[in-house]
Amino acid sequence: MASYILGLDLGGTKVSAAVFNGKGQILNRARAKSRAWRDQEEVFDTIVQVGHKALERSKVSVKKIAAVGIGSPGPLDPDTGYIIESANLSFKNFPLGPRLSEEFKCPAVIDNDVNVGTYGEFKAGAASDAKDALGIFVGTGIGGGIIINGKLYHGFSKNAGEVGHIVIKADGPRCGCGRRGCMEALASRVAITRDIRKAVKQGQKTQLAKIAEKKNEIIPSNALKRAYREGDKVAVSVLDNAARYIGIGIGSLVNVLGPEVVVLGGGVVEAMGDDFIERIERTARKIAFDFAIKDVRFVRAELGDDAGMVGAAMLARDVVKRSTSKR
Amino acid sequence: MASYILGLDLGGTKVSAAVFNGKGQILNRARAKSRAWRDQEEVFDTIVQVGHKALERSKVSVKKIAAVGIGSPGPLDPDTGYIIESANLSFKNFPLGPRLSEEFKCPAVIDNDVNVGTYGEFKAGAASDAKDALGIFVGTGIGGGIIINGKLYHGFSKNAGEVGHIVIKADGPRCGCGRRGCMEALASRVAITRDIRKAVKQGQKTQLAKIAEKKNEIIPSNALKRAYREGDKVAVSVLDNAARYIGIGIGSLVNVLGPEVVVLGGGVVEAMGDDFIERIERTARKIAFDFAIKDVRFVRAELGDDAGMVGAAMLARDVVKRSTSKR
Repeated sequence: MASYILGLDLGGTKVSAAVFNGKGQILNRARAKSRAWRDQEEVFDTIVQVGHKALERSKVSVKKIAAVGIGSPGPLDPDTGYIIESANLSFKNFPLGPRLSEEFKCPAVIDNDVNVGTYGEFKAGAASDAKDALGIFVGTGIGGGIIINGKLYHGFSKNAGEVGHIVIKADGPRCGCGRRGCMEALASRVAITRDIRKAVKQGQKTQLAKIAEKKNEIIPSNALKRAYREGDKVAVSVLDNAARYIGIGIGSLVNVLGPEVVVLGGGVVEAMGDDFIERIERTARKIAFDFAIKDVRFVRAELGDDAGMVGAAMLARDVVKRSTSKR
Repeated sequence: MASYILGLDLGGTKVSAAVFNGKGQILNRARAKSRAWRDQEEVFDTIVQVGHKALERSKVSVKKIAAVGIGSPGPLDPDTGYIIESANLSFKNFPLGPRLSEEFKCPAVIDNDVNVGTYGEFKAGAASDAKDALGIFVGTGIGGGIIINGKLYHGFSKNAGEVGHIVIKADGPRCGCGRRGCMEALASRVAITRDIRKAVKQGQKTQLAKIAEKKNEIIPSNALKRAYREGDKVAVSVLDNAARYIGIGIGSLVNVLGPEVVVLGGGVVEAMGDDFIERIERTARKIAFDFAIKDVRFVRAELGDDAGMVGAAMLARDVVKRSTSKR
């Protein structure tokens, strides 16, 4: 019987895959990196290869795959399986779901990369006992997902949950999205790098000066972590500020969404650790109404880089369960 | 057969009631004003009197009421029917739902005042064909409600939808809630009055100078409207600015919630009219991602002061329908 699930996670420069058994455990995995995908077909070929590699390593034949799930940068349409657009991957109206379904001869589910990350933490990670959850992932950018009544929330736009792009400082710094003052423009790794670079230019001393001076380079999370832990003044000031802005954004979102659990993950959060999370939480509790936030739990994401693959696999498993229960 | 619904709307200084027939039409109404309620029992007595007055005028006996619905300032618990706290009304853990149920001998539903306003527009007003809607009401403060999958969304906090209290300008002006930079602190009638007062103090000329100089007075919507229409420079500048901030807030909310319809209402929106709404919409469309906002409709609330009563009655009718279909 087909009872295995193939979970895939597509990032800007890499693809990860894992095969899950019926209990949701990972049998084996595969991944591929690329910095130079020429077109969408090449991206798709890489996805397929990595998927087959994971199957091979797991000693599971394609026939035994009940469903495949993939997380991808969007916007996308989870109903039709089309990626509407994804500039970094040169996707444009690409039928990723249908094509994967054809390739692996089973149902395929696609969803936004941070949505599946949130869903992974919700089904098998840090938020696994909540009904309503909010996931916030702080990395190069800031993304997240919303779980309402146990399900990923997509809204009428099918792409709800763009939590990194709420304006928290009108007329603030320019964001990658072109607007000004988004949470992402104030607290992502790109924003942190910009602020450290500015401090260096103003003549402030920091152990990050050398990395910061390299143009087009985003300071890696590990370097930030080291400088922060060693009390580097510039790093501490910039990162504390970023944590505060994330807290302001989360406080606002809690007022609007009233979640039970807030899951914090992503490269920056993982590197910076508990102090950073506590600072975020402290600010959020000051910003949100007490009645909205008093019973909210703040938890650190548990699945790390696996969150996307796991979430995508869990979404695929849901589809199998739904179709089985209909019979 | 009991087939009428009593809809109630409780504001800071007034209570409105209307009796609805099975088709959702208003038979007759009543209201009472008060600026000096001494305690919660006095507030409750007024509610009861106004309710009975509306019944009397509608020639409907209490026995024919199938359910009663009320919108009230919160926070409150829509499940138990308790008002957790409402400072202006001196409510503190008050069992408003159970007490109304006892008084009118039928099921009683309570919900947040702006939630019921949104629900009214959703069931019988401007947004009556949408599945996911966002209501924003701009008056003395800024409130709103969220409809998800055809239902008022309450979240785990039971008080989700506090859309006026998202921070859109970190470290901005002080809000009535005590925080800084909330949408309400930038664009409510209180904020608009503050900004006009500031302009007067700086020596700028405006026809609103006299009203603005009165301490503790909030400039009425009609005075704002007149000054705006007559091109009063200070009024135009302050109100355009407010519209821009509302647009920024709505753009952010659209990114997060992906609604189908945005309903704009409240005293300020109603007075200012289409120009103001267009300005809000234009900004929101610049702020939200195109894929999130391109198919969103912006509509002006249709029910005016009735929205709360109508929404409360519709919620009450839902309860009757649910219990009837269970039999």
